[in-house]
Amino acid sequence: MTKELVFGHQNPDTDAIAAAIALAYLEKQDGYDTEAVALGNVNPETQFVLDYFGVKAPRVVNAARPETDQVMLVDHNEPQQSISDIADLTVTHVVDHHRISGFNTEKPLYYRAAPYGCCSTIITQMYSEEGVDIPKEIAGLMMSAIISDTLLLKSPTTTDVDREALQALAEIAEVPDYADYGVKMLKAGTNVDAKTAVELITGDAKSFTLGNKQVRIDQINVVDLADITKRLAEIKAAMKVEAQSANYDLFLVLATNVLTSNSMLIVVGDPKTAVTNAFHTELDENDVMNLPGVVSRKKQVVPPLTEALENN
Amino acid sequence: MTKELVFGHQNPDTDAIAAAIALAYLEKQDGYDTEAVALGNVNPETQFVLDYFGVKAPRVVNAARPETDQVMLVDHNEPQQSISDIADLTVTHVVDHHRISGFNTEKPLYYRAAPYGCCSTIITQMYSEEGVDIPKEIAGLMMSAIISDTLLLKSPTTTDVDREALQALAEIAEVPDYADYGVKMLKAGTNVDAKTAVELITGDAKSFTLGNKQVRIDQINVVDLADITKRLAEIKAAMKVEAQSANYDLFLVLATNVLTSNSMLIVVGDPKTAVTNAFHTELDENDVMNLPGVVSRKKQVVPPLTEALENN
Repeated sequence: MTKELVFGHQNPDTDAIAAAIALAYLEKQDGYDTEAVALGNVNPETQFVLDYFGVKAPRVVNAARPETDQVMLVDHNEPQQSISDIADLTVTHVVDHHRISGFNTEKPLYYRAAPYGCCSTIITQMYSEEGVDIPKEIAGLMMSAIISDTLLLKSPTTTDVDREALQALAEIAEVPDYADYGVKMLKAGTNVDAKTAVELITGDAKSFTLGNKQVRIDQINVVDLADITKRLAEIKAAMKVEAQSANYDLFLVLATNVLTSNSMLIVVGDPKTAVTNAFHTELDENDVMNLPGVVSRKKQVVPPLTEALENN
Repeated sequence: MTKELVFGHQNPDTDAIAAAIALAYLEKQDGYDTEAVALGNVNPETQFVLDYFGVKAPRVVNAARPETDQVMLVDHNEPQQSISDIADLTVTHVVDHHRISGFNTEKPLYYRAAPYGCCSTIITQMYSEEGVDIPKEIAGLMMSAIISDTLLLKSPTTTDVDREALQALAEIAEVPDYADYGVKMLKAGTNVDAKTAVELITGDAKSFTLGNKQVRIDQINVVDLADITKRLAEIKAAMKVEAQSANYDLFLVLATNVLTSNSMLIVVGDPKTAVTNAFHTELDENDVMNLPGVVSRKKQVVPPLTEALENN
């Protein structure tokens, strides 16, 4: 049996790490020689989770080829989000909850995708289908991943399957008050004060072409939006520098209070009317707007902005 | 709930039809408004199956857009094998047992693939996981699909999961002697006498670039290889015309006896040495070789021929 590496996307979040550990364990029960690894160091939120459940962070790898040519992907499929030598590898399994894009294979494989809020929710289903008991600490990791991806079930990406999986996992992990645990975990990932302005605006940034504009959208999780407002001048200055050097027409930073599910949006660049039209909200004198109830870039920011920029 | 069409690939075989009917029924239990359709008329083997279990052939469609923009794919994912307006549709579900190639979506979806011998085997698993009883006639269709795709479990593509699914489906379908049924079904699909030479050499032909040669490989299922030998001159003449007009370097016809799992290979074009090297077998004076035990183009013909042509 060839050894197989199991990993999530670059810049791993809690789901990428939890899903890799959980799938590696499940497939080991089926006789595969698996090892969960990571395509980068774990973030502070994930470190909190690993410490809580007494699990070691997966080894960080940059390429698979020195060790193996067979891999399993979790929480991603797009090659540019994957390991550096993905083009030279055989992917035998994928478990994911994103769109499929640019993913091609030469041979048939196991591919399992569902449009749930979290990849770990799918893996929880797979344990149940295969009748494999979830070890307590792996249940804890997957529970944390669901809390992280759905912001404690408040994101509009949340499905009933995520809700049921979270309940079941919290029982196995013996964390009856998962809401209390979840707030502590989310807070651990939101230490804004410890980060530079550049770290804040690049940490979770993605690029999009909307209409004919190049748009960059970053998201920062916080427990108090005042942590952002007090550094607004510094953050906007960093956004302007970044927008100019990378030729973004618009640079948006969505700062989200993970406790209240409200966001503020900071806007640099043009056309600003597209942003105000998208959210039917005016910008204040600092080019900031409040967006109560907005937490999902994928579901609540990109679609209205796409429409506004296409009609601009 | 938007209506969704469910269909297999163009030139549908028994698995494409059976899997579409079976998935449409399963997803209907989940509340989807599904209809199984087909991207072409059923072949004689599938007609035998439908008649045996008293099921109407699915309606043939050429495009989805007049009716709906949401579809589910079975037994394929590559756009060129799919419905004509696939680029304008949203694919919500895929169940397949092939490689993934050229398949891209804008949104997350349900995707279920496994490297089994038959797509209906995966759908049989899904019924079991979801606790849905398989209706007798749908079990009969899926049983037939497994027999068809694996040539009664003799193809090297066959897995233990296919074997178990076939047993379970035969019980539900109340066909205890599935081998006897299977031979009758396979025979129904092999009426060589009723076809012209051009129909025989194009019916199941696929093109490959191997080494730097353009290679065309057709497969004909028969119950008696004498049906082919008696028409050899006519078939070779048709192969030569086709090879010249389409610029194939090599044209191979693999005639497979579905009862004995032996094949004969007819070779037109060059380099013939690559073919003899690939199979360690000489050609007779009619450019024919016997290949005992060879039934799978994908697993037993393309790989050795690729190696031989790359080293030619």
